[in-house]
Amino acid sequence: MRLRNRPWAKPLIEENPQYVVTEPQQFKGKWQTRFEKPAPLFVEVGMGKGQFIVEMAARHPENNYIGMELQTVATGMALKKQLERKLTNLQLVRADGSGLTEYFEEDEVDGIYLNFSDPWPKKRQAKRRLTYPTFLKQYQIVMKNSGNIEFKTDNRGLFEYSLTSMNNFGMRFDQVWLDLHQSEDLEDNVMTEYEEKFSKKGPIYKLKAHFQREEENK
Amino acid sequence: MRLRNRPWAKPLIEENPQYVVTEPQQFKGKWQTRFEKPAPLFVEVGMGKGQFIVEMAARHPENNYIGMELQTVATGMALKKQLERKLTNLQLVRADGSGLTEYFEEDEVDGIYLNFSDPWPKKRQAKRRLTYPTFLKQYQIVMKNSGNIEFKTDNRGLFEYSLTSMNNFGMRFDQVWLDLHQSEDLEDNVMTEYEEKFSKKGPIYKLKAHFQREEENK
Repeated sequence: MRLRNRPWAKPLIEENPQYVVTEPQQFKGKWQTRFEKPAPLFVEVGMGKGQFIVEMAARHPENNYIGMELQTVATGMALKKQLERKLTNLQLVRADGSGLTEYFEEDEVDGIYLNFSDPWPKKRQAKRRLTYPTFLKQYQIVMKNSGNIEFKTDNRGLFEYSLTSMNNFGMRFDQVWLDLHQSEDLEDNVMTEYEEKFSKKGPIYKLKAHFQREEENK
Repeated sequence: MRLRNRPWAKPLIEENPQYVVTEPQQFKGKWQTRFEKPAPLFVEVGMGKGQFIVEMAARHPENNYIGMELQTVATGMALKKQLERKLTNLQLVRADGSGLTEYFEEDEVDGIYLNFSDPWPKKRQAKRRLTYPTFLKQYQIVMKNSGNIEFKTDNRGLFEYSLTSMNNFGMRFDQVWLDLHQSEDLEDNVMTEYEEKFSKKGPIYKLKAHFQREEENK
């Protein structure tokens, strides 16, 4: 979702380099130095306005979190939340998700979140979807094999595509939710801004999956 | 769905052994002899009242079809439809789907349909679901590796379970539909009695999938 321009966003980001990284390749293999203490590292690709990753970091001080976002305005809005909370286990990154392997060392990440990412509905746009094989390949490289991807969307077409794409890539599904807000697992669900707004209009889909592990080879 | 008793069903089945097989193990490896001519063989496990398999056989004279059903009453109702149509490419089988490998030789089947099968919603009933691994194993044995399974249901819990179960078994997804009746592929969709009735109340889910093929090994 593109947001209208907020002129304050860019200067605010520049004034807070302790919370926002704009050249993530500089920290490849060294992300733990950005946090108060070393801890398992979870990355949200496309954090939008940041409600999800800020709340996850607040609820789970035992982990470190990175929220990535390409849009300057959205990153600025996430930063405002962080400036109120000053969470020592949260870093924001203004950068393109397609460069993950330039930003992270192999196995540097413990888990990945994809929330309500752009559906790119036209066939010729498929390669921009965050569950397209070229993205999955990068997740596989930067994430430990023990890690999971958690993917939420309200977009039926994107979820249909992603189930097939992740299956065909050889990923293993841990659980599928076809109407998350009607399920028993809602309690632990941290909502994004978008989810709060759109979960009334139709089902929220969720998939938790991992890359095939040695012991799962047939 | 259990049907109320119809006393005519059992005698009608007994009077029509040319259309209904009640001891399918006798035809293991020899199913093509039951049809007018040899042709690719498709099996619906749990045909219910038979509308789907009768219509498929009528639309596709180039294939042979078998409708399996455990319930006598439902089998009798399917038989009534066949007695009106006298399709030479359709055979009905009154038997339990859990015995597939006793009824069919390895690779004897070209494709399998599972439509609106019993959801068995309780966890301890999972092993009765037609997408439980012990069933998938049987499909894999009796179906050619080039074949597909097409699975439809309106039951959210069963579809969530089946996506995970079939993925974890190593099956590859060809396509997923999360609201079949809203999709562009509805044209070719042959409806079951149940589907006609319940597709107005919520989405119909569909999965087309196959067992992993040699060239798909990573």
